[in-house]
This record gives sequence, C-alpha cells and structure tokens, in this order.
Amino acid sequence: MASLSYWIGMMGITAFAVTAVLVLAPRGIDLFSAVVLGIITAVGGGTIRDLILDVPVFWSLDLNYLWVAIGASLITFYADALLTRRAIFRLMLYLDGLGAALFAIQTVDKCWRLNFGLPLVPVILGIVTAIGGGLLRDVLAGRPTLFMTRELYATPVLIGCTLYVMLLAWVPNQESIGALACIALIFALRAATIHWNLSVPNWLMTKPRAG
Amino acid sequence: MASLSYWIGMMGITAFAVTAVLVLAPRGIDLFSAVVLGIITAVGGGTIRDLILDVPVFWSLDLNYLWVAIGASLITFYADALLTRRAIFRLMLYLDGLGAALFAIQTVDKCWRLNFGLPLVPVILGIVTAIGGGLLRDVLAGRPTLFMTRELYATPVLIGCTLYVMLLAWVPNQESIGALACIALIFALRAATIHWNLSVPNWLMTKPRAG
Amino acid sequence: MASLSYWIGMMGITAFAVTAVLVLAPRGIDLFSAVVLGIITAVGGGTIRDLILDVPVFWSLDLNYLWVAIGASLITFYADALLTRRAIFRLMLYLDGLGAALFAIQTVDKCWRLNFGLPLVPVILGIVTAIGGGLLRDVLAGRPTLFMTRELYATPVLIGCTLYVMLLAWVPNQESIGALACIALIFALRAATIHWNLSVPNWLMTKPRAG
Repeated sequence: MASLSYWIGMMGITAFAVTAVLVLAPRGIDLFSAVVLGIITAVGGGTIRDLILDVPVFWSLDLNYLWVAIGASLITFYADALLTRRAIFRLMLYLDGLGAALFAIQTVDKCWRLNFGLPLVPVILGIVTAIGGGLLRDVLAGRPTLFMTRELYATPVLIGCTLYVMLLAWVPNQESIGALACIALIFALRAATIHWNLSVPNWLMTKPRAG
Repeated sequence: MASLSYWIGMMGITAFAVTAVLVLAPRGIDLFSAVVLGIITAVGGGTIRDLILDVPVFWSLDLNYLWVAIGASLITFYADALLTRRAIFRLMLYLDGLGAALFAIQTVDKCWRLNFGLPLVPVILGIVTAIGGGLLRDVLAGRPTLFMTRELYATPVLIGCTLYVMLLAWVPNQESIGALACIALIFALRAATIHWNLSVPNWLMTKPRAG
Repeated sequence: MASLSYWIGMMGITAFAVTAVLVLAPRGIDLFSAVVLGIITAVGGGTIRDLILDVPVFWSLDLNYLWVAIGASLITFYADALLTRRAIFRLMLYLDGLGAALFAIQTVDKCWRLNFGLPLVPVILGIVTAIGGGLLRDVLAGRPTLFMTRELYATPVLIGCTLYVMLLAWVPNQESIGALACIALIFALRAATIHWNLSVPNWLMTKPRAG
C-alpha cells in the first residue's frame, strides 16, 4: 500500500508538472520559467499544507519529488509539439486528476495522524493540497485561476475528502479500503467532468451584473 | 475582556467573509469559489502571521473561526441580492473595519507576549493580519489589490498599531485600556474614510507618467 | 567575512527596495503602498526560504533589515524624480544583481549548514531567495512577473548556486573563496545581461501559438 501510494504520488507529480508546462507553452515560455513553474505546480500545494501543519516540507525529505518534477518539465518543454496532441493532453488531464485525488486523501491521512484540527481541517487542507500548486502557477503566470472559471476541479476533492473523514471517524479499522475507495471516487467524479466537459451549472453561480 | 475580544473576532471573521463574497458576486462566481475565497479572506492574514511567528495557525486550535467563515460565505452567497442593498453593504464595510482593527491589535499583543521583533515587527504583522486575507482574495480572484487603488485601508492600522506599541512600552500596566483605545482609534479613522469616501491625497502619490 | 557579507546584504536589501519603488513609481503609487511593497520585495524571498527551512525569519532577529528597507523605500519615494535618471536606475539594477547574488549564496550556505535537502534544495532555495521578493511585488502590484518576460534574471543565480554546491561538496575547505567566486560569477553574468540588454534566445522558448 505505502509503495503503491508512493508510485501513484510520483505519477501525480509528473502529471502536475506536465500539464503545467502544456498549458503555459502555447503563450511562449522560456525553459527556465517552464521548469520553475513545473516544480511550483507539482509541489506547491503540498508545501503550503506542510507549512500549515508545521512539519518538514515533504520534498526536503525525499528529493525524488523534485527530480521527477524537473525531469517531467524538461521533457515536456522539448516534447511540447508532441504532447499537445489532443489525445495525449487529455490523458494528462486524467493523470492530473488521479494525482489530485491521491494527494488530497494522503493529506487527510496526514492530518488525521497528527490529530490536526479534526474533523474540518483535513478536508480544507486536502483541497489546498490538490489546488494550491495550480493556483500558484496561474497567479505567477498571469492566467485566470480556477476561481475565475467554471471548471469543476475542486468539488470532487471536497466530496471525497469529506467522505474519507467520515469513514475514518466511523469505520476506523478499514483505513486502506476507505482510502482507495475515496481516491477512486474523486478520480471518477473528476474524470466525468473531463469526459463530458461538465462545468458549474447556472444555479450554483451568482448572476453577473454591472459592478 | 478575553470573551469580548473573542466575539468581536468572530464578528470580524464574519465581516471579512461577507464582504469578500459581496465584492466577488457581481462578476458571477460559483458557490465553491465563493466559500473558499470567503475562508481565505477571513483567515488568510492571521495565517501568514502565525506562520511567521512559528506558532500553530489560530484556526487549527478553534475550528469556530472556519465554521463561521463557511457559514457567513454560504449565507451571503444565497442572500446576495439582499446584502448588496447599499445600506447593508456599508454596514458590512464598517464591521470589516472593526474586524481589521481588532485583529491588528490582537496581533501586536501576540508579538509582544512572544517578544517577537520588538518594537517594529508587531506593527508590520498587525498590518499583515489586517490586509493579508484581502490581498490573497484579490490576487486569486484577479482583482486589483489595494496597492493599486487609492483606498485608505491600511493607514489607520499603521497608526493604531504604532500607538499601541508605544503604550505597551511606556504604560505597560494599562494594556486593556490601551488596546480598547487603539481599536477604537483604528475603527474611527477607517470609519471616517468610509463615511466621507476619503482616498489618498495627491501629495502622497507619485506622479503617473509614461513608463 | 561575516561582517563584509552583512554589509553587502544591507546593500542588497537597499537595492531591492529602491528598484521596487522605482519600477512602481511611474504608474502612480501612494507612499504607504510604496513602503510596504519595498519591504516585501526586499525581504520576501528570504522569508519564504526561512519558512520552508523552519528557522526564524531572518528579519525578526535583526530589525536593521526592515529599517533599511523602510528607509530606502521612503527616500526613493521622495527622490523618485532624481533616481529615475537613467544612469542611477542602471546603477540600482547592478546593485540589485549584487544583492541577489549574495542572498542566493548565503542561502546555499544556510541550507548546507542545516543539512537541508542536499544537494538539490540549496540551489532551489537560492533561486527562491533571489527572485521571491520580486515575484511577490509583481503579483501584488499587478505587473507581469519574470516568468512572463524574457528577462535573464534567475539563470545566473541557477548557474552560480549549482557551482557553489559542487565546490562545497568537492572542495569543502575553501568555503569563503568559493562563496566569493560564485557571488562574483552570478554578478558578472547578471551584469552582462544588463549591460548588453540580453534576453532569452528563441531556441530556449516554446513557439507561441493560438491557445
């Protein structure tokens, strides 16, 4: 389980870095910026989480997270023309969703073991871990953040983390099965939004009007 | 005193979250983004402060701060049409000013007890606590920050925190009265800028010119 | 050496604050925003570094960093008309480069002594320290960050920090000479980009295209 989670984590880091470079490449970006923003996107959310938890940032204990982010960013920069082919870009979106699901559930676990702000904070930090890196990337690259779009990126994370907290509280002996189920749920919901191109419905939006 | 400060704090959190959703609503925002940005606005400044002080973030020790921010954001999202009525929006601006005043003076107190960077850092972290959440909200929502406007939001906080540091240094036995006086001063100055719609005068601005 | 490094550090803080106010002044900025953004630019990068290292933020242990940043920002605000004279602005760019070089190498040293994430993290945090303050300034002031331009600001830092890490690993007894050589190298590379107005060449950029 620990080892599987490690490899899915590395896959998530890869997907975060690759999608970061892919969304930035069409505007014209230099190699250095691509790699730095790739790293920030890949590890930014978990870094904010670890600072708030006051534990060592996860990538200082295992440099592989950084090396993988650097390698993925470099390869994507040079293979950009290939990877933007529609099918590959969509594959990366799915991997990105799997990474977000795994990091979010890992964060709930981490908070639970630290007994940190239960039961609410694990859910909030799960969301922070899943979206923090992408937010930093968009702000630093001058792109609209997900708060300005109708993308359904974080809602699946909210649902899955809430469910996992309930499972930890009420079925504490089945942690591994619960974790896998919630990762699968988040990924399935996210995959559905990608597959059917779903966005936030009108009745969950305020009505735009002259400010 | 502690209990009064606690309730004013909750009122400040409420006002921060409510005004955040109110300024974002006219552009069209979804429920999830409204709640997340409401939370970030309400607790963001204090979070940066606690990270710098290297103490546990205040909302991990008392989840009520988060629940109140979530509740206030939700209610504001659904009551948006009502709350943007001019009178209620102005009331919220005053409460926001009261919250900023309280959080700033609380921060000076916190630094003083921790003997952290006296006498300058308490003033700087007081300002950070008062404006940090709003800055994060504006950056994440793509709005101009207060550094780009002529709003007189932080100057009252600077004056009040500076005065409070002087009182703590020179009249150490009257902490409670000094704190109340400085909160009142910050709030009065801020209320004046709201009431008379004051902005930064020209002689405190650089002259704009072709860059 | 320690004392020389201290004074170069103060010069770097000064240059960071001065250049911050100078780039913001032409758009019209108020005194308060100028000073706050001056401080953030001057100490922001080192603050992020210290939070990640989980050590006390450097300016809480020596308030002179803050006083110098405040003083430099104030003087620049009032002397703006003088300092934007081309020759003086260019001098400040060179001092800014010297400051970035020194802070980056200091950061590598700090990580090395803490045995923090060797050998990769010192280089990454060296870059963070050199560019973090400027990134915060640009995001908060609504300017394009260096990730959106072709400025060659951080590449010299990357080269110098990488070299310094190699020297620390392979020639551990010559720390001081190595540090000075790497500071000189970073500064020389940065000075060359300023002097010859160099920017990122096309072959290190992705091709812009319709997104």
